[in-house]
Amino acid sequence: MAEVDIQGSLAHAQMLSEQEIITKQDFEQIQSGLLQIHSEILSDHFTWQLALEDVHLNIEARLTHLIGDAGKKLHTARSRNDQVATDIRLWTRQAIDQILEELRQLRLGFCQLAEQHASTIMPGFTHLQVAQPITVGHHLMAYVAMFTRDASRLEDCRKRLNVLPLGSAALAGTSYPINRERVAELLQFDSVCQNSLDGVSDRDFAIEFCAVASIIMTHISRFSEELILWMSPQFGFIDLPDRFCTGSSIMPQKKNPDVPELARGKTGRVNGNLVSLLTLMKGQPLAYNKDNQEDKEPLFDSADTLLDTLKIFADMVPHIQFKPENLRSAVGKGFATATDLADYLVRKGMAFRDAHEAVANAVKVSANLGLDLSQLSLDALREACELARPEMIGEDIYAVLTLEGSVNSRNHTGGTAPEQVLKAISKAKIELNP
Amino acid sequence: MAEVDIQGSLAHAQMLSEQEIITKQDFEQIQSGLLQIHSEILSDHFTWQLALEDVHLNIEARLTHLIGDAGKKLHTARSRNDQVATDIRLWTRQAIDQILEELRQLRLGFCQLAEQHASTIMPGFTHLQVAQPITVGHHLMAYVAMFTRDASRLEDCRKRLNVLPLGSAALAGTSYPINRERVAELLQFDSVCQNSLDGVSDRDFAIEFCAVASIIMTHISRFSEELILWMSPQFGFIDLPDRFCTGSSIMPQKKNPDVPELARGKTGRVNGNLVSLLTLMKGQPLAYNKDNQEDKEPLFDSADTLLDTLKIFADMVPHIQFKPENLRSAVGKGFATATDLADYLVRKGMAFRDAHEAVANAVKVSANLGLDLSQLSLDALREACELARPEMIGEDIYAVLTLEGSVNSRNHTGGTAPEQVLKAISKAKIELNP
Amino acid sequence: MAEVDIQGSLAHAQMLSEQEIITKQDFEQIQSGLLQIHSEILSDHFTWQLALEDVHLNIEARLTHLIGDAGKKLHTARSRNDQVATDIRLWTRQAIDQILEELRQLRLGFCQLAEQHASTIMPGFTHLQVAQPITVGHHLMAYVAMFTRDASRLEDCRKRLNVLPLGSAALAGTSYPINRERVAELLQFDSVCQNSLDGVSDRDFAIEFCAVASIIMTHISRFSEELILWMSPQFGFIDLPDRFCTGSSIMPQKKNPDVPELARGKTGRVNGNLVSLLTLMKGQPLAYNKDNQEDKEPLFDSADTLLDTLKIFADMVPHIQFKPENLRSAVGKGFATATDLADYLVRKGMAFRDAHEAVANAVKVSANLGLDLSQLSLDALREACELARPEMIGEDIYAVLTLEGSVNSRNHTGGTAPEQVLKAISKAKIELNP
Amino acid sequence: MAEVDIQGSLAHAQMLSEQEIITKQDFEQIQSGLLQIHSEILSDHFTWQLALEDVHLNIEARLTHLIGDAGKKLHTARSRNDQVATDIRLWTRQAIDQILEELRQLRLGFCQLAEQHASTIMPGFTHLQVAQPITVGHHLMAYVAMFTRDASRLEDCRKRLNVLPLGSAALAGTSYPINRERVAELLQFDSVCQNSLDGVSDRDFAIEFCAVASIIMTHISRFSEELILWMSPQFGFIDLPDRFCTGSSIMPQKKNPDVPELARGKTGRVNGNLVSLLTLMKGQPLAYNKDNQEDKEPLFDSADTLLDTLKIFADMVPHIQFKPENLRSAVGKGFATATDLADYLVRKGMAFRDAHEAVANAVKVSANLGLDLSQLSLDALREACELARPEMIGEDIYAVLTLEGSVNSRNHTGGTAPEQVLKAISKAKIELNP
Repeated sequence: MAEVDIQGSLAHAQMLSEQEIITKQDFEQIQSGLLQIHSEILSDHFTWQLALEDVHLNIEARLTHLIGDAGKKLHTARSRNDQVATDIRLWTRQAIDQILEELRQLRLGFCQLAEQHASTIMPGFTHLQVAQPITVGHHLMAYVAMFTRDASRLEDCRKRLNVLPLGSAALAGTSYPINRERVAELLQFDSVCQNSLDGVSDRDFAIEFCAVASIIMTHISRFSEELILWMSPQFGFIDLPDRFCTGSSIMPQKKNPDVPELARGKTGRVNGNLVSLLTLMKGQPLAYNKDNQEDKEPLFDSADTLLDTLKIFADMVPHIQFKPENLRSAVGKGFATATDLADYLVRKGMAFRDAHEAVANAVKVSANLGLDLSQLSLDALREACELARPEMIGEDIYAVLTLEGSVNSRNHTGGTAPEQVLKAISKAKIELNP
Repeated sequence: MAEVDIQGSLAHAQMLSEQEIITKQDFEQIQSGLLQIHSEILSDHFTWQLALEDVHLNIEARLTHLIGDAGKKLHTARSRNDQVATDIRLWTRQAIDQILEELRQLRLGFCQLAEQHASTIMPGFTHLQVAQPITVGHHLMAYVAMFTRDASRLEDCRKRLNVLPLGSAALAGTSYPINRERVAELLQFDSVCQNSLDGVSDRDFAIEFCAVASIIMTHISRFSEELILWMSPQFGFIDLPDRFCTGSSIMPQKKNPDVPELARGKTGRVNGNLVSLLTLMKGQPLAYNKDNQEDKEPLFDSADTLLDTLKIFADMVPHIQFKPENLRSAVGKGFATATDLADYLVRKGMAFRDAHEAVANAVKVSANLGLDLSQLSLDALREACELARPEMIGEDIYAVLTLEGSVNSRNHTGGTAPEQVLKAISKAKIELNP
Repeated sequence: MAEVDIQGSLAHAQMLSEQEIITKQDFEQIQSGLLQIHSEILSDHFTWQLALEDVHLNIEARLTHLIGDAGKKLHTARSRNDQVATDIRLWTRQAIDQILEELRQLRLGFCQLAEQHASTIMPGFTHLQVAQPITVGHHLMAYVAMFTRDASRLEDCRKRLNVLPLGSAALAGTSYPINRERVAELLQFDSVCQNSLDGVSDRDFAIEFCAVASIIMTHISRFSEELILWMSPQFGFIDLPDRFCTGSSIMPQKKNPDVPELARGKTGRVNGNLVSLLTLMKGQPLAYNKDNQEDKEPLFDSADTLLDTLKIFADMVPHIQFKPENLRSAVGKGFATATDLADYLVRKGMAFRDAHEAVANAVKVSANLGLDLSQLSLDALREACELARPEMIGEDIYAVLTLEGSVNSRNHTGGTAPEQVLKAISKAKIELNP
Repeated sequence: MAEVDIQGSLAHAQMLSEQEIITKQDFEQIQSGLLQIHSEILSDHFTWQLALEDVHLNIEARLTHLIGDAGKKLHTARSRNDQVATDIRLWTRQAIDQILEELRQLRLGFCQLAEQHASTIMPGFTHLQVAQPITVGHHLMAYVAMFTRDASRLEDCRKRLNVLPLGSAALAGTSYPINRERVAELLQFDSVCQNSLDGVSDRDFAIEFCAVASIIMTHISRFSEELILWMSPQFGFIDLPDRFCTGSSIMPQKKNPDVPELARGKTGRVNGNLVSLLTLMKGQPLAYNKDNQEDKEPLFDSADTLLDTLKIFADMVPHIQFKPENLRSAVGKGFATATDLADYLVRKGMAFRDAHEAVANAVKVSANLGLDLSQLSLDALREACELARPEMIGEDIYAVLTLEGSVNSRNHTGGTAPEQVLKAISKAKIELNP
């Protein structure tokens, strides 16, 4: 908070001086004092006094110590209430910018991995049951879609918070001839709060930020769940670099997917922070109440948790090692191309419901033989389907029943065909590298 | 849901026909069947069968009953997963549009009331202690600021949800030559989901909507708390029309502010719905899982609660009766213009800290006399301040110490001066009446 | 609520009559009127009037219609506030008793299944990685431990709620010479609320109940997650009867574990209800506020959800079909007895850390050979361990390295040995069948 | 955690030695090493190494450094999983015991204050409207009722957590001949966990504790809300000592009730912690997963917050200064004895509904005259009631209409009569001073 507090004070003092509320000389002293404090803090030479409650009072006391009476003038035409409100917004804005950058890196990592596996076949699951073959690249790009929405939410949140409360004073504004727009300009706020009571008591931006954080962590938790499943010997779909896992001194082959597990757990803490803030603000009368002092911990904790989690995921994702042979053999367990056979029959003119019945017959026969549909001979397949007109199924059926045939056929925006996956990657990369 | 389900099916069928996946004749039959069902539902002549699980299956069964085989073709190139995802988005979009309109009405109500009371003086509270005089109009416009942000959040949420999932099929897309952009156009979606796995499993929009709903209800809870306080005999700031209260058969003068109390309580349910959805989605692997069937109740309940609450508040707000004399006498209890006296002294050249000390002295003297600062004579005031240069305070001090003087002096964007309040109202009204 | 409302009114009227606050004749009329209403409701002949707000007023109106003036006397010495508080407690007490019975049935189901599989070997997981062999019975009995704690929590909750609020009247008690202890006795409450303000405004029992419900659903969600994993083809550990699953018209072999998925999803709703109630009660001043009307929906919904979920799980659990061969082969994937080898070496006198190193070597060798530790010859094992004194390992090592040897060795209270599992089952069954 | 970790290790080592799993000499070395570490920590001479992840590893490393190989034997027959589970339970048990003591002190403080004000009249509110006169003592004792239930909840939670997980080892138990009951005895656990999988993965006690903490904080938030209201000049019911408030440098008469405001705000954080833990545990498969590492922060934070809050409230409550004249005049604003007049008429034989009508008339008349009911002359009162038989009201009505008459008449268990309040205090004090 120290950094943004100094930033805010510098802009306020410059405006006071420009408005001739304080003298130019006062401003210069304040400026040099604050810059010195800033460098003291950066170089760890600043002595924090616990007796002085918080960051703001520590800086103020040090300033007065350094430059005397001019220091006391810094607080002209502002109050703790609008000062703190401004500082939290500056802090959160900075956090959002960092998180946006990590979200960008993470999506680039997903794109890179998806590109490698644009055509790699894996089972697509519904209800954790094998449903249809999909491509690994397609699966990964689903997360790019999620994190892209997340970035858009953060940008909208940033837009709403980037409004300056300074000038609200304690709650009603001030009688000094301040220039709020000038301060906004100096601090790169888009505009100024339109109501001083709202300016000092609004914590919407903190709730909104925490809600966005919860959605992001929900996405992280979903991907983490998948990584944990995929790392289990039952799935065996991937391997993760050692540095994201812990091993066992006794079972060197064992690797616990620590990072995804911890991340999944941290979803709890971020959801908890959101509930904390909502509970905090419920039923508070205007304007400022001391309850609001409890806003910082949940906000800061969600931001820090998010930033750390995204950083490590951005680092980890490009290094996920898929095991194509295991993925492929897993698809085999579920008659994943049964839908393709039905669609084929419908295209040949069979009614939807009749086609479903025919395929169900074929699947039963195959299951009894321990074979996949694509492993049946043309005659066997025709017979298994119990078709009135067996010639309805031609040799071209095998292009449909293979995994490649199946995924290639879903070739429209959003579909799993490698061609579409590559398009989606290329589109995403352009957006991510402006 | 029935209405949006039919809407979605009509668009899907039209596209299928345009793409020649079904015949024009099939489409016409589907269309006439669905329109008949629609009018059956509207006129309450539709027989819902509980055995048919849900809305979608009821409509499908009725359609097949009405038009035979063509009805079965409606489901070509789509699945329950993308159909339901589309319907929920259509439903939520409609709900958002209704809520936005209620938010608009509510803000108009606040503006109207604020205009009547642009100059009415009331105490501004911090920590529920009288801090400074403000205008009632200013206080009310703080809520316009909040609900304006809320509307902006809803619009952003709408923007992100207004993306078509149809075409995602079960999870991987479809092998039919569909035209997703055409369906989007027909249903007024801005674009199509870029990833089919994400399309069927994404419930971000429901979480985001519920988060926005929680923030709105938090604002409602804050205003409700104020109304309840203001209605208590201890405050006696307002009266509410009988229809928003319940009385007592025995104490005819008693009025319980039922509507604000219930609204404050309903914040709980809306926050709970948000937690339900976040818990629901945590750790779900891709793509669709049955857990998601639990998404509708919290979403629908938050939307309905919000809509009902905003409606009744939009109706109630313009009828709040303020009691100016009580408001004015309440300000008198807190030396609310002490800050103004200090600012006056600073402007006359006194150091900030010295001015504060002088005012503290004056307040002590006044409190002992049982008088407000403005009731002291000039001499008494000068003496009470223990000034080295008594002439520092002139007759013009009384313009500062009166409540009107105080509020008029806070005359900048966001300040409590009636002039600023009127400006804010006029600005808000222009935005609300485009 | 109707049932408990009548129950409460009967006891209240009897006490009023015994205290001679109303006449014996009045009481008899009230009694016969309420009994008639009760049977009207049971036989669905009661006409509910929406205009009469709620259950209580409907019953009161009907009573007055049936018996005239005596009906109006029923409300003597009580108020809506204590009447409603009493009714909710009666309702919740009944719900708890039903839930306790379902928890008992569920545990009996687990015991029954555990008994069948007291010796069936399965992999014990940590981090979803195979860690050590355990018995299926042991795994199942972990849930008996959880649900036993849950029952104990419910009993404690019941104890605290089983205290009579009636007699608190509106908030301060009543001036009639009532006998609260007598009403408590008639309604089987353990005691009476010691403070009338607390009596009408306390909703602790609802929060506590919802918190217990959340913990129970958390256990259900954990078991559901396992069932879903175990049903996936990747695990293939179990099969579930069709009636707890949904199939696919096209893939007859496919079974989606609907019941566990829905139950996992319903955890969200129950957690949400808890948050609703906590939010509702936060910061409410004494005594009764209208906010409290919002207490019923979350409470009732959690109770209903819990009861339904436990019922279907109690029905499902005994019918879970384990696939022992799959379970056994899954243990083979993880060198699950490596710890046993280390413990063996320690018992032979080797230092803990040295033993770990020796085993790590052996695991590496086995992994390279594609064999389990138990499949190495004695010489090969000695060599793989790189022992200074190879004779440290004797033929008895194979008893340790087999899966049965491993599980049998963990033979203490709480351990996975079949002997302990059977003991635990027998102990649990005695507690469940008093 | 260090203290409880050493405590747990000492008991484990003693048992190992008694069971001859380690030698007596090993145990003595371990014991002396751990005691030295304990005193190093207490005297702040222990060097914590960040590289060693956590408390447990730091202590283990230091032990091995101090006593060599014997140190490594401490970990025989236990694992990190059961060690950590044991430590958290020990820590939480200790926290519960401290919180129980603070709850006791707090209730004693309430009793003391209630005793001083057993007969002090104040308005009883419903809907924040004056409803009936009550005694301050009665109001305060409502909180004693709440905190007594809270203590009972904590005791039940303690009972359930006081079960030893040690011996569960990694997840399945151990092959060493351990004596779990002996360790339980040494650490004062009531019994041992009956299932090792449950032993290492159970975090119910943490959730239950956090749920109890949320209910306690809800009570604190309700009382805080009242203190804040009562401190506002509109109520003016109480004064708080300066050390629980902050002032204003400029308005010496102003006192912000900081402690209650902060406490009300901290309800949010404690509710958030509960949600964190519930989210964390949702859907976790057995047994231990790394997610669980996230259990400590919410648990510790709720315990610390609770302890600090209860301490400061226990200190503050006895020093609350009530202002009896303000309380009394506030009752006057609401015709608070109207119910008493109605009850009087009913006792004189009038029908309930007729009595209500009569009183409503009287209240209207009084309100028009600006008088309280008790200020009407007997004739005026009879007339105002529009009685058919005016003599129904006798001189004894004034005993009923006075505030003292009203409160004295509610003289049954739980009623507001001073006699009952004194009884409740005396009963509570006996329970609190065993």
